Amino acid sequence: MKKYAFGIDVGGTSVKIGLFTNDGMLVEKWSIPTRTEDNGKAILPDIAASVLDKMKERNIAADEVEGAGIGLPGPVDETGVIRKAVNLHWENVFNVAEELAGYLNGMKVKAGNDANVAALGEAWMGSGKGFKNLVMVTLGTGIGGGVIINGKILEGTTGAAGEIGHIHIQDDEELACNCGNHGCLEQYASATGIVRLLERELANTDEPSLMREKKHTAKDVWDAVEAGDAVATRVAEKFGEYLGKGLADIAGVLNPEIFVIGGGVSLSGEVIMPFITKNFKKYVFHASRETKFTRAILGNDGGIYGAAKLVL
Amino acid sequence: MKKYAFGIDVGGTSVKIGLFTNDGMLVEKWSIPTRTEDNGKAILPDIAASVLDKMKERNIAADEVEGAGIGLPGPVDETGVIRKAVNLHWENVFNVAEELAGYLNGMKVKAGNDANVAALGEAWMGSGKGFKNLVMVTLGTGIGGGVIINGKILEGTTGAAGEIGHIHIQDDEELACNCGNHGCLEQYASATGIVRLLERELANTDEPSLMREKKHTAKDVWDAVEAGDAVATRVAEKFGEYLGKGLADIAGVLNPEIFVIGGGVSLSGEVIMPFITKNFKKYVFHASRETKFTRAILGNDGGIYGAAKLVL
Repeated sequence: MKKYAFGIDVGGTSVKIGLFTNDGMLVEKWSIPTRTEDNGKAILPDIAASVLDKMKERNIAADEVEGAGIGLPGPVDETGVIRKAVNLHWENVFNVAEELAGYLNGMKVKAGNDANVAALGEAWMGSGKGFKNLVMVTLGTGIGGGVIINGKILEGTTGAAGEIGHIHIQDDEELACNCGNHGCLEQYASATGIVRLLERELANTDEPSLMREKKHTAKDVWDAVEAGDAVATRVAEKFGEYLGKGLADIAGVLNPEIFVIGGGVSLSGEVIMPFITKNFKKYVFHASRETKFTRAILGNDGGIYGAAKLVL
Repeated sequence: MKKYAFGIDVGGTSVKIGLFTNDGMLVEKWSIPTRTEDNGKAILPDIAASVLDKMKERNIAADEVEGAGIGLPGPVDETGVIRKAVNLHWENVFNVAEELAGYLNGMKVKAGNDANVAALGEAWMGSGKGFKNLVMVTLGTGIGGGVIINGKILEGTTGAAGEIGHIHIQDDEELACNCGNHGCLEQYASATGIVRLLERELANTDEPSLMREKKHTAKDVWDAVEAGDAVATRVAEKFGEYLGKGLADIAGVLNPEIFVIGGGVSLSGEVIMPFITKNFKKYVFHASRETKFTRAILGNDGGIYGAAKLVL
């Protein structure tokens, strides 16, 4: 195993890059803008130039680098082929790993879906360290997920394993999800979903609430829960009911050791956890009742950690 | 790889045993009674005696046998430890693989859960042949499941991966499932569940139906669907709605190549399939929309095939 690896996490506005040692130490991280114009054709050359510049700056020779891993916002199969990446304005099906390797003078490159890669990061150096079978749930604007089995990402047939934001959880939802279906988990338990639950709750009651004065963000809901606000607490109960039920179904399929809860919603702190775990225990099959729960600790760096681990 | 392997499938009333060649040919199968008295202490010695007798009868030497695999009705971890097997009257936690190996003079033995092992059998020599990632769904008195990833059984942390009969699928169910929860998939889409759906449907309508004259078995429902009976067809629609929704959630997690539908209900024929696939497509995330479906073809032999494959 060579001394260094690069971990690259590509988002719609910026690309985060990390230089790691092979034992998981983050030596340095930086970011570059994601240039999505012209169907995002500059994105991979920009990344390669930044990586090669960093090697020059730090006097790192090519034979000291094990490779570069890259996490992408779209389904990626195990060979590195991406099918669709709306946020990057990529419209063709092509092999990201091969193309980036070309720009990097033949360096070993592996690619994965960003949510899966973040799960691998938490399993490697985050709060999932030491667990071989885990599911990471990323509660952000939407809900992403990543499944790690025996220490490796489960990609799925079309790169869509762990797309748990779109499991069906509510039968009578009239509002459509972004995916076109109705009643997806993401419609209730993402940051956007929590705000939606709040607005429905406020519309249903005249009860006084801290939430009537505040901006309606998911973070505000959790702050109000901590302050003992009854309306916010009911929203939290509903969030927990949906998410706990969804994770119980996932545990019925995978029987993992641990769930790692990440994404922006998880940054609101431990306050979110009892609402999830209480409902999980209510719905789950007894053999998975002891499944552990933890919050992610790598935050936005999970993606670069996991990307580096792809090649290590 | 040695020439032969034994596959053993232990049920509550009989033990099926198969002698296989290492390329998957079933040379001979037979069964012996399952003696559950005295906490089932004779079960493993009986199996070993039967295997050793067969080797003697056919002049098969110990060094011609790769090993014996055994499927059991309970959660089994990857080392061969079983936690509970109510139907066998086994009450202790012990290592089945080690104990049976002892009775078989040190033969290599591997153990697995029966539903998982049946899935492996279908993946090896059944209708899942050629697919590396599949989910088998066994629709019998209850619902069992087995998950195969990269050609291997996913056991789960406590041996309970693929326990898909108990994923939560209906919020307002008043009747308790055998597991103690309410609204499990098994309450609607098993043979027992189909009969329950039928009885609820008949109680709700005075409409004439073939089902008023027949015994109420799941098989009768499917026969009546084929005869164009409206009440039976509504029951089939409900069955398909529940099962399609459940399998859509599973596909959201695993993104498998194919679902293999087995168990007694699947023996009613192709008539069951459109009810499942139509509803699956309605609920599933688009990336898993092309997931294939097939019916199991090994029937009751799936367990012995899969058990033999455990050691091959």
